[in-house]
Amino acid sequence: MSQHPHVIGWAHTRFGKSDHPDVESLMAEVSAAAVEDAGLTAADIDAISVGVYGTDTTQQRFEAALVGTGTPELGRVRAVRSENACATGSAALYAAFDMVEAGRARAVLVVGAEKMTRAPAATVNDVLLGAAYLPTEQQYGSFPAVFAWLANQYAQRYSNPRDALARIAAKNHRNGVDNPYAHMQRDLGYEFCATPSERNPVVADPLLRTDCSMVSDGAAAVVVTTADVARTARRAVAVRGRAQANDPMPLASRSDPLSFDAAANAFRSALAEAGVGLDDLDLIETHDCFTVAELLQYEAFGLAAPGKGTLLPVEGGTDRDGKLPVNVSGGLKAKGHPIGATGVSQHAIAAMQLVGEASGMQLPRAERAVVFNMGGAAVANYATVLEAGR
Amino acid sequence: MSQHPHVIGWAHTRFGKSDHPDVESLMAEVSAAAVEDAGLTAADIDAISVGVYGTDTTQQRFEAALVGTGTPELGRVRAVRSENACATGSAALYAAFDMVEAGRARAVLVVGAEKMTRAPAATVNDVLLGAAYLPTEQQYGSFPAVFAWLANQYAQRYSNPRDALARIAAKNHRNGVDNPYAHMQRDLGYEFCATPSERNPVVADPLLRTDCSMVSDGAAAVVVTTADVARTARRAVAVRGRAQANDPMPLASRSDPLSFDAAANAFRSALAEAGVGLDDLDLIETHDCFTVAELLQYEAFGLAAPGKGTLLPVEGGTDRDGKLPVNVSGGLKAKGHPIGATGVSQHAIAAMQLVGEASGMQLPRAERAVVFNMGGAAVANYATVLEAGR
Repeated sequence: MSQHPHVIGWAHTRFGKSDHPDVESLMAEVSAAAVEDAGLTAADIDAISVGVYGTDTTQQRFEAALVGTGTPELGRVRAVRSENACATGSAALYAAFDMVEAGRARAVLVVGAEKMTRAPAATVNDVLLGAAYLPTEQQYGSFPAVFAWLANQYAQRYSNPRDALARIAAKNHRNGVDNPYAHMQRDLGYEFCATPSERNPVVADPLLRTDCSMVSDGAAAVVVTTADVARTARRAVAVRGRAQANDPMPLASRSDPLSFDAAANAFRSALAEAGVGLDDLDLIETHDCFTVAELLQYEAFGLAAPGKGTLLPVEGGTDRDGKLPVNVSGGLKAKGHPIGATGVSQHAIAAMQLVGEASGMQLPRAERAVVFNMGGAAVANYATVLEAGR
Repeated sequence: MSQHPHVIGWAHTRFGKSDHPDVESLMAEVSAAAVEDAGLTAADIDAISVGVYGTDTTQQRFEAALVGTGTPELGRVRAVRSENACATGSAALYAAFDMVEAGRARAVLVVGAEKMTRAPAATVNDVLLGAAYLPTEQQYGSFPAVFAWLANQYAQRYSNPRDALARIAAKNHRNGVDNPYAHMQRDLGYEFCATPSERNPVVADPLLRTDCSMVSDGAAAVVVTTADVARTARRAVAVRGRAQANDPMPLASRSDPLSFDAAANAFRSALAEAGVGLDDLDLIETHDCFTVAELLQYEAFGLAAPGKGTLLPVEGGTDRDGKLPVNVSGGLKAKGHPIGATGVSQHAIAAMQLVGEASGMQLPRAERAVVFNMGGAAVANYATVLEAGR
């Protein structure tokens, strides 16, 4: 691309059970705030790109138009909604990147949001399972059970990942303590995460509650713009490389369900576009909807050979002070996973790190980050290489 | 833009009550067919852009990934869903245009689909009303009632549009006879459309059943590509100009609910980008979800002065053999309005006209067309100028 898109402003609600009654008011909390953070006004915004999956089962739809009702000064800005299951936030971001690269917009407000805690738990379960291919995967009964199946496959072929999963959970919960936006800011400790208990029950064997991201409300917003506009911003983060890659939806259609081929493909392609390698990265924010997802992503990204990803959390290589910190924010695990907000949040938090505004999360060195966000069980995979600067 | 996107292939199901059980199988009927019609193979397709609003209330979601299950040779092509209420199909198309103009894809399959007839009528009503702003418009109780309110406002300010609405309905039903894809291929005649009756009851006063588009299943697909790829295609239609414009969602927030300002803005902007005027157009395919919508669009497009749109259908200016034919396809009125499919269908049918493949619908002269598709009551408005050629 002749012009990399840039991220120049952001805003983020606290994730968790929110007082906001709906996505409209969640989006309102971050929309004007992100525009202001970018040093722009509503008049500078050419388009709004909204990511909402639709977990809230109220009658109100047409979420793209709800940014302009919650924040009336944006009511005449063209808006559109993107959806790609749990990668919905990144889908909205990539739509904005495309608009900017196509010369169709100079500044796009991207808003990801989800209101999940109003619907009954069984409804939320059904809606999330709707991101799996029901003719072959409804048998699992829940989305956690799909990932539990992957963990069991891993145990059969390689080694029991149970200990590694606990270490990933403990790492992410420890990291989440320093994230002011996190649903849970509590260091649960390795023992708690490793041991089934009344307070940490089995959700879908072998996954415990501490292996599963939470049901959260939340919203995040960023402003995406051209290099020209970014030059006048007080700080900017460049999108140096990006890629989306897909795998067939049914796990049974994959040659190897454990290899997350399209995740690997998206990750490699994004790094290639940026012209960088693994050694050039300072952090990864990745899609740990379940701890076993983070484990399989280690292998897809080439951080470990197939079947060897379990060694990484034991050795601490992805700890905050490790060789390549993964999910310094606490990840979906501790931060929460309000579906449509997640991808936008990941990019916003990586941007904060890269410009030195990540408060307690701040790494001493953070010049280049990769964000990875996936929809379904590694069906729609988005990888973005972000760098501070213009 | 340095490179206009082009449409080089299409496919269209019959609209109406379909034997297809779901959007997956509806999309499967058109996906491979559109790729083949473009003279391409699945390996040539870089991305899939899906438009589904979500009227079918089954548990299965993640519609973007369902193209690759219904048509497995597309299972590894990256896919994303766009949604913008009744303009969902155009939202998916514009996402594809952006990808092509950004240099992010050489060929994109765009699939719009909706399965509406499985859900109970009351559910469909609720889902459609969800495209209105409920805090202020739920009182109307149905989407037809929102447009009935507009018709009554029109009568109060200008003149009773009842006769003009009947003439628009009669025109579109007459045109639909020659559209092999139409839900209803029946010339109902002016008298029937003008007269409340047992078979043509009042839906929301003053709108009769013949003033309202139908609940339909259906899918349409097109292949969008670069000028380079279009050069080798057996025929191509260029996107010469396009624009999306929004108005605030609540009608109460508009300075004049009858003026459809953002529709006018999108239409003008698209013509300006194409460098053409009204006199350069040979046909318009427009969003007549209700006959009063087509009437108000006449005025927004500048075909008639405010309050004078009622004269146009009396004079026959938008008839098939009139000065500027509108909805030669039968429009949403006769063709049907399977929400996600509509915008894609409008572009596909305009493309057929422009390359002389519109069978019984074919106009003697069709070199340049405008497609207009809107979400909500003129909230999200898309206008596209299409021309035959490369």
